[in-house]
Amino acid sequence: MKRGVLKNPTFAFETWGTLNSDRSNCILIFTGLSPSAHAASSNIDPSAGWWEDMVGPNKPIDTRRYFVICMNSLGSCFGSTGPSSIDPDTGKLYRLTFPVLTVEDIADTAISVLEHYAVQHLHTVVGASMGGMTALAFAINHPGKVSRLVSISSAARSLPYSIALRSLQREIIRKDPLWDNGRYLLADHGPVTGMRLARKLGMISYRSSEEWSERFGRERALGFTDEDSPFGIDFEVESYLETHANKFIGSFDANCYLYLSRAMDLFDAADHGGSLSSCFASLSLESALVIGVSTDMLFPISQQQELADALAQHVDEVIFKPLPSMQGHDSFLVDMDRFRPAIAEYF
Amino acid sequence: MKRGVLKNPTFAFETWGTLNSDRSNCILIFTGLSPSAHAASSNIDPSAGWWEDMVGPNKPIDTRRYFVICMNSLGSCFGSTGPSSIDPDTGKLYRLTFPVLTVEDIADTAISVLEHYAVQHLHTVVGASMGGMTALAFAINHPGKVSRLVSISSAARSLPYSIALRSLQREIIRKDPLWDNGRYLLADHGPVTGMRLARKLGMISYRSSEEWSERFGRERALGFTDEDSPFGIDFEVESYLETHANKFIGSFDANCYLYLSRAMDLFDAADHGGSLSSCFASLSLESALVIGVSTDMLFPISQQQELADALAQHVDEVIFKPLPSMQGHDSFLVDMDRFRPAIAEYF
Repeated sequence: MKRGVLKNPTFAFETWGTLNSDRSNCILIFTGLSPSAHAASSNIDPSAGWWEDMVGPNKPIDTRRYFVICMNSLGSCFGSTGPSSIDPDTGKLYRLTFPVLTVEDIADTAISVLEHYAVQHLHTVVGASMGGMTALAFAINHPGKVSRLVSISSAARSLPYSIALRSLQREIIRKDPLWDNGRYLLADHGPVTGMRLARKLGMISYRSSEEWSERFGRERALGFTDEDSPFGIDFEVESYLETHANKFIGSFDANCYLYLSRAMDLFDAADHGGSLSSCFASLSLESALVIGVSTDMLFPISQQQELADALAQHVDEVIFKPLPSMQGHDSFLVDMDRFRPAIAEYF
Repeated sequence: MKRGVLKNPTFAFETWGTLNSDRSNCILIFTGLSPSAHAASSNIDPSAGWWEDMVGPNKPIDTRRYFVICMNSLGSCFGSTGPSSIDPDTGKLYRLTFPVLTVEDIADTAISVLEHYAVQHLHTVVGASMGGMTALAFAINHPGKVSRLVSISSAARSLPYSIALRSLQREIIRKDPLWDNGRYLLADHGPVTGMRLARKLGMISYRSSEEWSERFGRERALGFTDEDSPFGIDFEVESYLETHANKFIGSFDANCYLYLSRAMDLFDAADHGGSLSSCFASLSLESALVIGVSTDMLFPISQQQELADALAQHVDEVIFKPLPSMQGHDSFLVDMDRFRPAIAEYF
C-alpha cells in the first residue's frame, strides 16, 4: 500500500448550537461511509439531515445544551478532500493517485477543526458504523482530548465476513468497464451499473432477513413484471432494491466509495497496541456507551460486546446496550423509537 | 412468465445399489443448484461424488441396503435438458427460449425414471438446499409415491432475503456485457466476470461469519498483494474467494444458473394449498426428518422449524434436528461429523 501526504486538504464540517464559555460542551460526530456532514437541518441549510431525529433542539443530542460538530469524512465527496478533488500539484483530479486512506486519517481531520474553535477537550465523540471506528481511532490517538465515547453499530476491527462483502462491492464497481481504472468522467457518474449493483449488495447487508420477511413476504411487484423476460423484477423486494439503488446513482463518487470502503477493512484498533485491551490502556475516558443491534450482520452484536468488554478494562463506566431492532445495521438511521431514548439517556 | 412444454427432454441420473425383489428399497435424491447426479463414486464413474461421505456401502445412505437414484435437475447443464441444450424444433440451443422452470418441474422428472425401474413407491425422497424444495414438491404432487421425506437445510418457500441475494447474483451475471442476453458462445464460457462475482456472493451467503472469523481472522494474503493497486487482494478471505470463484468458471453454464436460481425464488409450497399446513394435508408420509443449521443465512433455522411444525400437523413422526454447525448453508457438504450421524440415525 502506498501511504502519502495530502497538500492543504479541505475538511468539511457543519456545526449546531453554541460553544459555552469554558468550551466544555462540544460533541463531535463522525459519519458512516456515505453521509455528508449535514446531520441535521440548520438556519444555513434547512433541509433535513441524515440524523435529523437525533440532532437538534430538544433532540437526544440536544443543540440547546451542546455545540455539535459533524465532520464530512476525508476521502468523501461532500466537501472534504477526496479522490474526486483536484490535486494542487497537478491541477488534475486525484482519482487513484489519492493515497491509501485509513480511519485514523479521517479521525485526525477533526484536530484542526477543534483548534479553529479553540476546543481543548471534547465532551463526547460519537460515531455510528464507520463513524464509530473513527470515533474510537480519535479516542485512541488523542486520549487527552475526549472524555466520553459513543459507539453505535460499529466495531473495534473489521472481521472477514464484512471484509468479504465490501471487497465484493468494490470488485463489482471495478469490473464495470465504465470505471476505467478510476478515469471515468465525473459528469457521467462513471460506473453506474457497478455502483447500482454494489448498492444493492450494501442494502442486503445493511438490513435483516427478519425485517424483509415481515415487510415484503412473497408479495409480487406491480408494474414491474416484464412478461418477455424470465429474469425481470417479479417480487416486491426486488423492486425495493431497484428503486433505492437507482436513487443512489449520481449521489456518490465511485472512487471515493472505494477508498472509504477499503479504509473500513484496514481498521483494527489492536494495531495501536497489540491487543484490543492493551490498545485501550492509554484511553482517558470517563465513560463509554456501546450500542449494537441483534440483527446486524455487518457489525454483529458479538463485536459490540467484545468492544464493550475491552473498554471496560480501562474505562470506569461502560454501558453496553444491545437493542432488538429488526432493521439490521441500518437501525440507527430508522429505528428511532429505540435509538432516541438510548442516546438521550446517555446525555 | 411464459410457461411452456419441452419436447422429448432428457433426464440424467445415476444409481447405486440394487433394487430388492419387491422394489421397496428405493431412495431418491434431488440436488442443490449446482451439483450433477454424481453424488458418489461407482464402478462406472470412480471419481468422488459431491456427497461421497454420505452415499455408498456402509455410508449413512447405505447402498448395500438401498437402491439410490440421484437426479440431475432439469434446467441444469450436466445431462438433463436445460437452456444449454439443443431445442429439437429449431436445432439451436434453447438459451432464453427455454420455458420458465419451476421446482415442481424438476420434481416431476423423477416419475419417468421411477417408471423405468417399475418402482411404484419410494422408501424415501431426500434433498438438500434446492433439492429439499424439490423433494417437498415431489411429496406434495405425488403423495402416493413416497413414505418418507428428508429435508436438509431447505425450506417450504423462498423468503425475500434469499430472493434478494439470488436476484442480485442473477443481475450481476446479466449485466456482464458478455452475457449478451444469453447469446454467448458456450465454448467461451460467456459472462465469466459476472459468474465469478455471482459465485463470490454465493460463497458469502453459503458460509457464516462465525466460521470465517475463526478460519481467516484478519490474516493477510501472501503472494497476492499488489503494491500498485489500492484495491487488490490484501486479506486471506479475499484470496480464498478469488481462488474458489475462479474454480467455478467454466464448470457451470450461466443461463442454466439463471433458470435454476429463479426456480428457487418461485417456489412456495403454500401455492399447493393456500397455506403451508393445508398444502401438506394430502401428504401420505409415515415420517419426515427436517435438518437445519443455526448459522445458515440463506435457509435460516427458523424456516426449518416452520417446515417441521407444518409437517407435524399431518405426518405422525416428524423429527426436527437443528445442528450447531459453523459452516452455514454449506454445512451439509462439509460438516460431515455432524451430518453423517444425523442421516444415519434416520435410516
